[in-house]
Parts: sequence; structure tokens; C-alpha cells
Amino acid sequence: MREDDIIQTLQNQFPDYIGDDAAVLPHSIEEAQLISKDLLIEDIHFRRHYFSPWDLAHKALHANLSDLAAMGAKAHYLLCGISIPEKVQDYALSFLNALNVLCKELGITLIGGDTTSSPDKLYISITVIGYSPKAHIKYRHTAKTDDIIVIAGQLGWARLGLFALEQGRDLDTRYTNACLRPSAQITMGLWLGKQTGVTSMMDISDGLYTDITRLARASNLRAELHLEELPSSPDFQKTCLELGLEPAEVMLAGGEDYAILCTVSAESWPAIARAAPEPLYCIGVMQPGTGVRISEHGQPKNLTIQAFSHFE
Amino acid sequence: MREDDIIQTLQNQFPDYIGDDAAVLPHSIEEAQLISKDLLIEDIHFRRHYFSPWDLAHKALHANLSDLAAMGAKAHYLLCGISIPEKVQDYALSFLNALNVLCKELGITLIGGDTTSSPDKLYISITVIGYSPKAHIKYRHTAKTDDIIVIAGQLGWARLGLFALEQGRDLDTRYTNACLRPSAQITMGLWLGKQTGVTSMMDISDGLYTDITRLARASNLRAELHLEELPSSPDFQKTCLELGLEPAEVMLAGGEDYAILCTVSAESWPAIARAAPEPLYCIGVMQPGTGVRISEHGQPKNLTIQAFSHFE
Repeated sequence: MREDDIIQTLQNQFPDYIGDDAAVLPHSIEEAQLISKDLLIEDIHFRRHYFSPWDLAHKALHANLSDLAAMGAKAHYLLCGISIPEKVQDYALSFLNALNVLCKELGITLIGGDTTSSPDKLYISITVIGYSPKAHIKYRHTAKTDDIIVIAGQLGWARLGLFALEQGRDLDTRYTNACLRPSAQITMGLWLGKQTGVTSMMDISDGLYTDITRLARASNLRAELHLEELPSSPDFQKTCLELGLEPAEVMLAGGEDYAILCTVSAESWPAIARAAPEPLYCIGVMQPGTGVRISEHGQPKNLTIQAFSHFE
Repeated sequence: MREDDIIQTLQNQFPDYIGDDAAVLPHSIEEAQLISKDLLIEDIHFRRHYFSPWDLAHKALHANLSDLAAMGAKAHYLLCGISIPEKVQDYALSFLNALNVLCKELGITLIGGDTTSSPDKLYISITVIGYSPKAHIKYRHTAKTDDIIVIAGQLGWARLGLFALEQGRDLDTRYTNACLRPSAQITMGLWLGKQTGVTSMMDISDGLYTDITRLARASNLRAELHLEELPSSPDFQKTCLELGLEPAEVMLAGGEDYAILCTVSAESWPAIARAAPEPLYCIGVMQPGTGVRISEHGQPKNLTIQAFSHFE
């Protein structure tokens, strides 16, 4: 049973377990509160031998900030649960120090947590809490037919970095840093949240293909992706091929991109593309139906996309 | 480095990491929001071979409800993060089903979480969210000199149950159930929260001795415990001795009692003791100084109290 099957089981049983990046709770007349929770587990999400405590703090924080940003909200508070194996106490304290510094830089207050020992692996559980005007909150079930599919951020960079780190190969730091120190799309998330033409939004943490499948399913639509429109570069293509990887598959299967995936109504798209503070890429369109259809220059493309899994 | 050392390090660095059972956030003019987070880790906090999925759901839920109850608040929402080893998926789904049923019974809504695989152990991270009128929220740093030390609930029962379960020995289910299916003192927590004579409050999850030490430190006072006043019974005493355990040490070191520890102003104590919906036990008094002093019938008592640790 994969993560999506478990989530599906939960959704059937818990109708309120909606499956957005963050849960939305009532707060004030104007604002809602958003809460997200992410687990980071040694040898599932990170390895200590190439993640410094600073890297890990960065990743733990930004993975959570990305969840809030992808709904249009900014983080205010953080709780950190940590389970520490006996031999990892120095590393864990350095991690907590780093998390503290990074939170302070971003104006986030650490309000509590839980600390326990662990039989063997370092386990980290972060809960972030933020607020947003209700009108700015975006969900993943609200895309409409003919909406443009748009992303902000890079695809596949973190996957390349992970691949090189796992194999102990040297690689341009832009790719290894995308894995070790991802940056949540905070500015873009907040900006996109304010645009009424943005009809749905989520972050890409498990790979574009997996995540657009979720958005399409939540919106009861089909996503049509245009392969030639995915943001790429000659260096990215070259690096993929040097590592023996297919660039399109790396971008689609990806994982931990922490890019933002959203849909924009066709009539709003030109103005939004012009005004956006950072580049946006139009990569497809929502249509009636189910699932995801991939084409390249108008021709259907059959690709085997392996759902992203860290170390498999 | 023990949990308290890590918490102390955190407190020095994060002044807002107060160390109460739950974090208190602004909500409305009358009410505050309370958030607590607890980790439950296989072979640290539970063993699957004697914890059924239902037991575990009960324990995970009530450990968190106890944190809110001990500050005078009721839980409304819950997030569940779970890391599932490949061979434990059936157990994990039964756990989530049970958690769902128990939440519904208590009017708590599951609003989200995170699901990942795990290299070997089952890890559970629960975040609970509740609300309380600001005036009813109790903290642990607000005890005053001459306040009576009071507890609600049983001491040492869960420790006896754990001991027997670990050794594979038969024991009265009142003790094993105290370990497997603890009940948070929800009614008492909410009631005590409303009493202005209650000056400080926390739950006893790591043993009375460890937790009263924390309350005394937070309040800059010394706790004087009267051993002969700890709630006990002939059966409890007999069972301890049969298992080769010292009853006073079991009650003091305990662990996972989920009893409530509070302080009550001396003048309020008679009325509160009379009106309480469940029994309250006066077990000592707060005095100027630091640390914890234990006496029996007025004579100082030197006891070696091992801080509670599940399987050591």
C-alpha cells in the first residue's frame, strides 16, 4: 500500500481529512488559520552523512513553509518534535540551533514540541501554523476546465542532487543545494494567493506527475501536460544525460522540488504572467476527464513515471 | 543528555519555548488556542506485541488530550503524522481506524497529517488543538508559597502495568489498562481550570517526582511532598511487593500516569476539595527554595528516584 492509498483510505473514513497541503481552521472574521505537519525521517527523507544539521534544519523548515505558501499563507509559529538516538545528540542539538536561527530570520516563533529518545533513527516532526485572509487561501479541488496549468520554481533539480549525493558523485551545487537546502516559494505563494485568477494551488513535493494527478483528481478533471513547455535548460539536459537519466522523467517524477503548481483561468493568465514577481511557466491545460495526459508538440507521449521515492 | 537537558537548552535559546504542556496562541478576545504535540515511538513508548492498534490509538489520543486538559482546555482538532514500516501497514491502518472512532466519540475532528514509510519502527506524531477561555488556562510557573500540592488520578498504576507487560506476567487489568489505555483527566482538567483558587497545573506523564521538579523549577519554589499522603491502596501496595517493587518509588517515579498535578491556594483548598467532581489528594505544600523535599510523617526521607524511562 502506497502513501496515496493510505491517504485515500483516510479520506473515505475522515471526510474532513481533505488532503490539501495544510488544514484550514477558523480564526477571525477576516482570517483563517492554516496548520501543516511534515515528518522527516532518517534514511527515508535524509541521510546524516551528507546532510549537515544546517542542511536538515533548512529542509525541515522549508518543506513545511512550502505547504503554507502553496495555500497562500505565511508561517508564524512552529512546533518541533524530535526523537533522538543516543549517538546522535550533538547532531540533533546542532539541528535545533540551526532551526532556531532560521526561524528567527523568518520571523517564526518556536512555541513548543516534544523531545524523546529514539531506538535508532533520527525522527523529526514539524508543525507550522500560519494565517491568511480567507479570500487568499487556495485549494487543490477548485481547478476549472480550460484553466492553464502553471508552475513557479524548478523541476528535477533536487532529484538530480539526490541522485548525485546518493552515488557520491560531484555535481554543480545548484542541484545538490536544491536537495539539501530547498527554498519554499514563499514570495510567489503569497503573491499567487492574492490573485483571484488563480483557481487552485498546491506545492510539488512528490514530483510533478504525482502531484498534478492529485490536483486533477481533487478537481474532478484531467490534466494535459505539454512536455516541451516544462522549464528546462541546456545545462540541466546535459547533466541528466551525463548521469544516465532521461530529462523529461527527472522533471516529471522529480520529488522535493518545492515548486508551486497552480491553475489560472485562461483570461487572467496574460496579466498574471506579466505581473508575477518571479517567472511562471505555463505547462498545460485542465480538461474534462480523469488522470494526466502527456504530449510533446501535440503528439501523445507514453512515459513510465515512477512515483518519487527517496532511496528506492 | 536527558530530555530535560535538551528542553533546558531549548528554553535558553528559545525564550518562547516555555515548557508548558501546550503552547498558547491568541485566538479571540475571550478565548486562546492551545496546541500540543506528542511523539509515540515503537520500542520507546510502546511495543506492538502487547499494544493492540486500539490500545495504541487510545494511548496516543489520551496522552495528547492530557496535555490540553492539564491546562484547562478541551481538544477540538487533531493532526496525525505516521511513519509506517513496510510490514506494519495492516497494524497502522487498524490504528488509524481506531483513532478515527475514538476522535468521533470525543467530538474531535481529524484535520490532516502526514503519512510516510519508515525504515523499521512505527512512529506516530500527534498534534492536538483546543480552545479555552483565557481566564481558565493554567500554567506551571504560577505556583505560590504555601500553596497546597494536589493531584487528581492514580499514581504508579501504569508503571505496574508496564512492568508486568514487559515481564510477560499476569496482573489485574486495572494496572495493565492504565498502561495500555490511559484516560486523560478531561473532566477534572476542565473543572480545575475554572477554579480561580488553582494557581498552577500540569499533567504527570514522566512520573510525579520528575514533573513536580519541573513545576517547582518553573515557579521558583521548592515542593515538599508528604509520602504518607500519596493516594495508594492495600491492593496496590501488595501488588508492588509481589513484583519486588517499592510502592513509594513506583508512585514517585511512575510514568504515564496522566494524572493532574496542580497547586491550590491554602484558603481555597477546603471548598475546592468539597466541590470537586472526582477525588483530589493533597500531597504536600510549596515552600521557598528549590528542588523537591520528601518526608514521611514529618521525617525527611531519602529516596533514590530514577527518572521514568520506558524500557530501561
